[in-house]
Amino acid sequence: MRLSRSFGKTLRQAPVDAETASHRYLTRAGFVQQVAAGIYSYMPLGWRSLTRISNIIREEMDRAGAQEISMPVVQPRELWEQSGRADTFQPPLASLKDRRDRNMVIAPTHEETTTFMAAANLESYRDLPFNLYQIQTKFRDEARPRAGLLRVREFEMKDAYSFDKDEEGLDVSFQAMAAAYHRIFNRAGIDVRMVEADSGPIGGKDSNEFVLLAESGEDTIFVCSDENCPYAANAEKAEFKKPAAGPEDPAELEEVHTPGIKTIEALAKYLDVPISKTVKAVFYAPETSTDGEIVFVSIRGDLEVNETKLRNAMGGAEPRLATPGEVAAAGLVGGSASAIGLDAPDGPRTRVKITSIVDDSVVDSPNLVAGANKTDYHLNNGNYGRDFSADIVTDIAMASEGDACPNDCDGRLVAHRGVEVGHIFKLGTGYSESMGATFTDENGDEKYALMGCYGIGVGRLLAATIEANHDDNGMILPRAIAPYEVYLAGLNTNDETVVAAAGKFYEELESAGVEVLFDDREVPPGVKFNDADLIGLPLRVVVSARGLKSGEIEMKRRDADEATMAPLAEAVQAVKAALEG
Amino acid sequence: MRLSRSFGKTLRQAPVDAETASHRYLTRAGFVQQVAAGIYSYMPLGWRSLTRISNIIREEMDRAGAQEISMPVVQPRELWEQSGRADTFQPPLASLKDRRDRNMVIAPTHEETTTFMAAANLESYRDLPFNLYQIQTKFRDEARPRAGLLRVREFEMKDAYSFDKDEEGLDVSFQAMAAAYHRIFNRAGIDVRMVEADSGPIGGKDSNEFVLLAESGEDTIFVCSDENCPYAANAEKAEFKKPAAGPEDPAELEEVHTPGIKTIEALAKYLDVPISKTVKAVFYAPETSTDGEIVFVSIRGDLEVNETKLRNAMGGAEPRLATPGEVAAAGLVGGSASAIGLDAPDGPRTRVKITSIVDDSVVDSPNLVAGANKTDYHLNNGNYGRDFSADIVTDIAMASEGDACPNDCDGRLVAHRGVEVGHIFKLGTGYSESMGATFTDENGDEKYALMGCYGIGVGRLLAATIEANHDDNGMILPRAIAPYEVYLAGLNTNDETVVAAAGKFYEELESAGVEVLFDDREVPPGVKFNDADLIGLPLRVVVSARGLKSGEIEMKRRDADEATMAPLAEAVQAVKAALEG
Repeated sequence: MRLSRSFGKTLRQAPVDAETASHRYLTRAGFVQQVAAGIYSYMPLGWRSLTRISNIIREEMDRAGAQEISMPVVQPRELWEQSGRADTFQPPLASLKDRRDRNMVIAPTHEETTTFMAAANLESYRDLPFNLYQIQTKFRDEARPRAGLLRVREFEMKDAYSFDKDEEGLDVSFQAMAAAYHRIFNRAGIDVRMVEADSGPIGGKDSNEFVLLAESGEDTIFVCSDENCPYAANAEKAEFKKPAAGPEDPAELEEVHTPGIKTIEALAKYLDVPISKTVKAVFYAPETSTDGEIVFVSIRGDLEVNETKLRNAMGGAEPRLATPGEVAAAGLVGGSASAIGLDAPDGPRTRVKITSIVDDSVVDSPNLVAGANKTDYHLNNGNYGRDFSADIVTDIAMASEGDACPNDCDGRLVAHRGVEVGHIFKLGTGYSESMGATFTDENGDEKYALMGCYGIGVGRLLAATIEANHDDNGMILPRAIAPYEVYLAGLNTNDETVVAAAGKFYEELESAGVEVLFDDREVPPGVKFNDADLIGLPLRVVVSARGLKSGEIEMKRRDADEATMAPLAEAVQAVKAALEG
Repeated sequence: MRLSRSFGKTLRQAPVDAETASHRYLTRAGFVQQVAAGIYSYMPLGWRSLTRISNIIREEMDRAGAQEISMPVVQPRELWEQSGRADTFQPPLASLKDRRDRNMVIAPTHEETTTFMAAANLESYRDLPFNLYQIQTKFRDEARPRAGLLRVREFEMKDAYSFDKDEEGLDVSFQAMAAAYHRIFNRAGIDVRMVEADSGPIGGKDSNEFVLLAESGEDTIFVCSDENCPYAANAEKAEFKKPAAGPEDPAELEEVHTPGIKTIEALAKYLDVPISKTVKAVFYAPETSTDGEIVFVSIRGDLEVNETKLRNAMGGAEPRLATPGEVAAAGLVGGSASAIGLDAPDGPRTRVKITSIVDDSVVDSPNLVAGANKTDYHLNNGNYGRDFSADIVTDIAMASEGDACPNDCDGRLVAHRGVEVGHIFKLGTGYSESMGATFTDENGDEKYALMGCYGIGVGRLLAATIEANHDDNGMILPRAIAPYEVYLAGLNTNDETVVAAAGKFYEELESAGVEVLFDDREVPPGVKFNDADLIGLPLRVVVSARGLKSGEIEMKRRDADEATMAPLAEAVQAVKAALEG
């Protein structure tokens, strides 16, 4: 492609709101153009990259036995009412009325449609397993679209949905997709880690995220420092061995005066005890609650609450912090509260519904300092079981760097920043049940199909790749997903010999099957070098008057510091070798 | 692909509302599944066909120098306000409010977005020409979606938009697209005619439709019977030489009593004159008019009004028939009206605004019978110019079969039914002007870019192909767009020798690069033969116990009546030869 004919221009300035490298460079290099907040057009260079990523995905999905289909963007809201997600999906479904006054939605994902299709076509166990995928446009009306292609409203997604007759089959389908994802990211030339993830409100048994490591990523993952240990999980899911509290005999409960002490840090300092010898109370409520209900969380002072784990402990209800009004109405004493006395006569439980959730760290730690439920007083030597109890005891603690790996190893958790580029879920039978995707098994019994779902954000993958692969001058694109392989620049555009030689070399490279973006513009060499760096194709090749004099071309890999020269006579082979190297 | 593993089932019954062959067969063969009125999912077989069509289109667009991009489905309504189409587009734009209360639309086409992109990237005449295309999902909220994929609400469309610096450039771009379209339809294996078309409310100079001939098509085209004449146009656009009225001297106007005569047929019969010696009046109004305005149309009695031509004569305003109330309010006498006397003192023009439009046939015909503007009376010997005049004289007549070709030949118009599968337009500068797509020309002057737009409905192309290529048993798909090339059926599924031989032959064909749908299901031979006919792949190959005894396979082209046998040893070559033949 001649750059002079390629639609789009490189820009010196990025949009003022572009805070991430991928946003800046994708815009400046003319890969995308914004049409509205979180809504982009792909220009020719950007779309070529997207197409190459899509083709890799398609090949690996086909190889794994998935079948390509295409499902509609606009759908009847009815489908979502059947699954029960019409009013709960986040962000809220983009909705419209059609001309016949029917409620329609713009699909943010396609579990409903696939299950609807399966319900109509699935009869017998002989029809199973199958896996349907598409690469298709979706819309999620994010409240704060940002960071270019990383957090958009409209996006291209590969989504696949597997259907199996039993758990064993689902395991096989799930593993096949995990393997396909590893192949896809390997072929795309990017370093992606598979980590355990929370399966979220969709539910289901297993869930893994694929995270591309990048400093600018908004996700945190934890990986075990022990090379032999495979443990890796994202922050929402990560477990850890909690620092053990020494075994101690329970001592007697005693009230201590703690004037003006409101925080757990101040408390530990005032009483001169390790922060791990305290228990803190945090008041939550189910997000949609309006009747004053409190979720009373107790966790050791040295740990923080992981709200994803808390949501799971709450049976899937999204938690929010209780309002000061709700706390006061329950008679809870902020800064001096504890679960000790929750059930006291005339205590909080006589006023509102309270669910007590205690992190398992508290159960294993004797003689903790706890709130006395009156201002300026705390209690020494609180002990779970003897002094207070819980409705639910489970792990609701947030892992942090340096925590001990939960596996049977001596490793510690190491934190990395990254960008989620894929997610695979075991869904189980939730959708099959609500939407009637049944089959007759070997014994003639009617069963619900077991589902899995598997997503890759195609544009997000490109953006994440750039987050992980760039320098101050521009993108550094892996060969497999760059729009072209070679950036060929003819310098000295007023020198006919150079123009002719560059044009001839362009034709030769194309004939040899090399994909070339030929900068044939009449602009100064500096502009060409800058644009070559910005667009970030794997190899820059320069034809210049000086080079021609010595019968050479100059080659520079985008990821290398130094350029090398190659004799013009062997230039095509040299370019191919440089691309491989 | 093994049919036992392919998602979807063939159905014995088509949906009750399926009136066209393509709707019946696409549904019964499991190519598509309806999700809502006019909204379909493509199942694996259907999507493979769509992909093959898309690939042909993509290759030919690239070859013609167009650059692939991708524009968003959801767009700010603002873009459409800029172009002036927000409230006038038909069918009305599907609209929604986003979370931030902004007005958004689901794009039915992308002139606005492309022009917006051009405006941002176009600077100099050196940037021109360029042509941007995409294959993308669109939504048009049709009032009456029907006929399966022929008239849907959501659809895949290839749309291209060219930008040029002058009319000559636009001509070149337009011709390049016309040539690309011919190549696309040729490669797809379908018989498509390019015809002149009305450019519609979008305006612009030239417009051509590509129509696939099919009896069931809803469009009518006229083609000249003279093989050497290239004239072809659709019904909206078609012109013709109107039968000449003999030259006569104007005779004197005289009133005749025509008791009870209301129609032009009855009038001609009653007065015993040829119907071509009469002039009829038809009362229209602009569609949105509410102030009683009348468009008074006069046309010779033997001709019918072409409302598309009339719309153009009305400057683009959509015509509707005037209501009886409007007619009465203007003082017009239905059944006895004529333009003679329109300007009479106290006549209709003193009451409401009236535009008189006269078909050119009337101007060339002397001594016509016309209404006398009072009940039960007409006038003999009305003559244009002497007795009445017009605001506009032009061609507003509908062609019909047998009319004389408008070209300089002796041919007559022959009518064909067909389905529009593509449309190319010269848009001119309308969008560039409203949306500011300007460039600086060679002299430093700011100019508006000249645009063309070029569409192909991808799913519609598949459906139209089936309308033109089917029999009572199913589809007859051209090789280039069939989901697979060969339908391989192993009969006698209880005979292990047959199962093994069929399986082995399947592998051999796939290794030889033949795309095979292998019917390995344990169903009776009759079911396999029926499904082979229904799905309509180009070649059916049968491995049976009887065939194996004589060392042969059976081959039958879907478009042939007879099967042929081939020795098993040369079967792969025989299949390839049969596919070519």
